Amino acid sequence: MERIELENISDFALGDENIAFAPYFIGKSYISLLNDNEIRIHNVTFEPGCRNNWHIHHGSGQILICVGGHGWYQETGKEARLLKSGDVVYIAPEIKHWHGAVKNEAFSHLALSVPIGSSSNEWCEAVTHEEYGKL
Amino acid sequence: MERIELENISDFALGDENIAFAPYFIGKSYISLLNDNEIRIHNVTFEPGCRNNWHIHHGSGQILICVGGHGWYQETGKEARLLKSGDVVYIAPEIKHWHGAVKNEAFSHLALSVPIGSSSNEWCEAVTHEEYGKL
Repeated sequence: MERIELENISDFALGDENIAFAPYFIGKSYISLLNDNEIRIHNVTFEPGCRNNWHIHHGSGQILICVGGHGWYQETGKEARLLKSGDVVYIAPEIKHWHGAVKNEAFSHLALSVPIGSSSNEWCEAVTHEEYGKL
Repeated sequence: MERIELENISDFALGDENIAFAPYFIGKSYISLLNDNEIRIHNVTFEPGCRNNWHIHHGSGQILICVGGHGWYQETGKEARLLKSGDVVYIAPEIKHWHGAVKNEAFSHLALSVPIGSSSNEWCEAVTHEEYGKL
């Protein structure tokens, strides 16, 4: 997908290709740091079909603020939730989950976390083509 | 301004008229609670010309995520900063400041704070028509 198309998904900065987290993603994503004081805020943009692996936040949770396109959020054992701009998702600590774009459209969300000394992320297995394909 | 017009300023819920904070605002505003876990997130929408009084956050700061229209943010002794959707403002604790809409357009921002036991807001004098009129 062309960069200019992805820049138009939301009013927030697209940033650079998300190399740091690429080992935990299927597909291409972009990341932009918007704030690093008290609350860390990144804008994360997923190309169509892109999603992160199942993962768990230990110690503190995460909040997703949807700002463009359409995406999915799923907690283990639950139905996937379709997300659109204006939706807000609270992800409690210790909940195994994944998020990403729908198949045919890019998706941008702000990801918020309160940096705490003891907090960490645990990355698990990929969301398989079979799982994702059913959505 | 008609409610339907204000609802179209951003993709986030407009909520109700902001009665609780009305004593500290000039003009009419709306507020909607979007998240109350770990990070408190409100969507605040200001009608054109509406702004809050000068105020100070004690203990922890605040982050504004601009999601629609155009507004102003000003810290004491500094030039006012024009805000548009996609801008993010970090307001450090103990900084005297105000924010609100421009004269001729409504403005919506998400306001984020990390609830801390000892944090509080100190509300000061209004932004006068003379101060605001110069912008």
